[in-house]
Amino acid sequence: MIKPLVWNGSELVVLDQLKLPHEQMNIPVCDVCGVIRVIKDMNVRGAPCIGFAGLFGVAFIVRDFDHKVWSDKASKLISARPTAVNLEYEVSRAMKIAIDNKDKMDSYQLFNYMIEFTLKTIEEAEAKHQEMAHWGEVALRKYVPHKNIFKLQTHCNTGELACGTLGTALGVIVLLARKNKVQKVWVDETRPYLQGSRLTAFELMQDNIPCEIVVEGAASHLMRTGEVDAIFVGADRIAANGDTANKIGTANLAIIAKEYGIPFFVVAPLSSFDFSITSGHDIEIEGRDENEILSLKDSRIAPYGATAFNPSFDITEAKYITAIICEKGIVDAPTIVKLQTLLRNEL
Amino acid sequence: MIKPLVWNGSELVVLDQLKLPHEQMNIPVCDVCGVIRVIKDMNVRGAPCIGFAGLFGVAFIVRDFDHKVWSDKASKLISARPTAVNLEYEVSRAMKIAIDNKDKMDSYQLFNYMIEFTLKTIEEAEAKHQEMAHWGEVALRKYVPHKNIFKLQTHCNTGELACGTLGTALGVIVLLARKNKVQKVWVDETRPYLQGSRLTAFELMQDNIPCEIVVEGAASHLMRTGEVDAIFVGADRIAANGDTANKIGTANLAIIAKEYGIPFFVVAPLSSFDFSITSGHDIEIEGRDENEILSLKDSRIAPYGATAFNPSFDITEAKYITAIICEKGIVDAPTIVKLQTLLRNEL
Repeated sequence: MIKPLVWNGSELVVLDQLKLPHEQMNIPVCDVCGVIRVIKDMNVRGAPCIGFAGLFGVAFIVRDFDHKVWSDKASKLISARPTAVNLEYEVSRAMKIAIDNKDKMDSYQLFNYMIEFTLKTIEEAEAKHQEMAHWGEVALRKYVPHKNIFKLQTHCNTGELACGTLGTALGVIVLLARKNKVQKVWVDETRPYLQGSRLTAFELMQDNIPCEIVVEGAASHLMRTGEVDAIFVGADRIAANGDTANKIGTANLAIIAKEYGIPFFVVAPLSSFDFSITSGHDIEIEGRDENEILSLKDSRIAPYGATAFNPSFDITEAKYITAIICEKGIVDAPTIVKLQTLLRNEL
Repeated sequence: MIKPLVWNGSELVVLDQLKLPHEQMNIPVCDVCGVIRVIKDMNVRGAPCIGFAGLFGVAFIVRDFDHKVWSDKASKLISARPTAVNLEYEVSRAMKIAIDNKDKMDSYQLFNYMIEFTLKTIEEAEAKHQEMAHWGEVALRKYVPHKNIFKLQTHCNTGELACGTLGTALGVIVLLARKNKVQKVWVDETRPYLQGSRLTAFELMQDNIPCEIVVEGAASHLMRTGEVDAIFVGADRIAANGDTANKIGTANLAIIAKEYGIPFFVVAPLSSFDFSITSGHDIEIEGRDENEILSLKDSRIAPYGATAFNPSFDITEAKYITAIICEKGIVDAPTIVKLQTLLRNEL
């Protein structure tokens, strides 16, 4: 099993996901600047893993800085990737714990305390992901009742590499595969960063799950020809009304799936829900470097002088989502009222 | 002006579109095997240009072979790319002319006669493309009446490089730009072959038309944020009911555009219409080499051992098409009756 983040007792060892699938290289990280860099450069990626990396970042902050600048350092850490709510969520709650405990111990003790908290959080995530995978299977059986083995489609990468644990959307698929319920997984290559082709295919192949890579453009063709029973995707942030920010291309899939009557499921832990945001309109969409589109591995594709627009995420409106699946269950046809009820029951 | 096909008096000089935009290399072709190879390998591409290359192929056949094997050779030529109807259309009508004239002249005279016919056909296409571009502008003004300058989106490459003349969808855009009516063109990069990024951006930049490249995944994001006033695409084959085969990814765009109420126009000459085919269900979709997805320029993207599914075209159902634009005018909300009426008026 390949782990995207490992604590070796003194350093955070980050698997460099930019080098996958052809090379397995590690990056040792031993301060918050290093954490920010691996997040910004996408050596570590996937909303849950970015959140966990943020927790290590907080531990480094409390070890290395006077508490007067903690908040500044935490803000810089959060801004390393603005769209994924998990980073903000994890860093904020860790900062609160650090501040509550800062007078009870010295900086090195507090550092160790925060590292322990981080490792416990990652362990707890595993249980949540198992729950999500269970509910994902329940949802699939509900919406595709006439089948026992499924052709599934997914976008981007939401497995172990993204989550540090089983995974969200890919976690459902892995669980189904363990029960011999997966006929085939259609893996969107996921331009421009090719997370599907490089990472999802890699993870599925490691688990011997039958999969085939397709370009994003093939979505209608696959659905129209009966090749897709259901679609599972993850989420970077879910607004109060169920609108979901996820990797660019997700909204295309959801709209096309609705047109063909194919269930479209968003799988995300409660930490991806952001009730402070009313709807998708208010979610900031991160723009990334145009060279991700214009070149590939230093090889120029587009004419020199050409420009590209590279939004990293898009908003899938709730009306296109069949159900949102989290560790607490299934929210069918999500609305603000249904999601608030879920949250209330949780609190 | 860069010409994809040039007859130099003894050879067909094919601009190698695989080498664009970074190198401008020519491939000399002097027999039908060479024509088949440049079509199969996609050195020449775009439905109209493939048709013209087919005409040169017929000239080479009548020069080099006994008339008893003409039909075999013509079949091989047609099968070089099955989806584009233009190849079949042009080769079939050229073969008919060749057969009608075979007893009137010797093989070299017939060769020259067929070359003249080919060059005249290409010349006539220019006039047709001007007509299509005119009707495209009329359609845009009809469906987007409140604007004078437009943000347009296009897929794949349908300009001079694809058509040998002004172009179909890109011809409309070029004409609008000459009248200062184009604010921006969103160019789909068009995976896996990147015709948008490599060729469409190249052509637009040569004409100083403002453009930006996007991944296919960005379609919903662009449309949802008001960045697209209309979409123009070409066609490889249009069935009797208006269902349209075009580059993979076209149907995605059409479905999403309909959801957002954005006009979606197919621009294609009458030679792309195939009334022998009732609907899109009966159009053969060409599958291409999976390595187009798994690798880029000999650099492997996906894990070794991974497989990909690479349909080259998809079917856009007529119900998602705002209008089909051809050299004879505009067919709004295309149906079999409307298209038959158009054809009857043409005959």
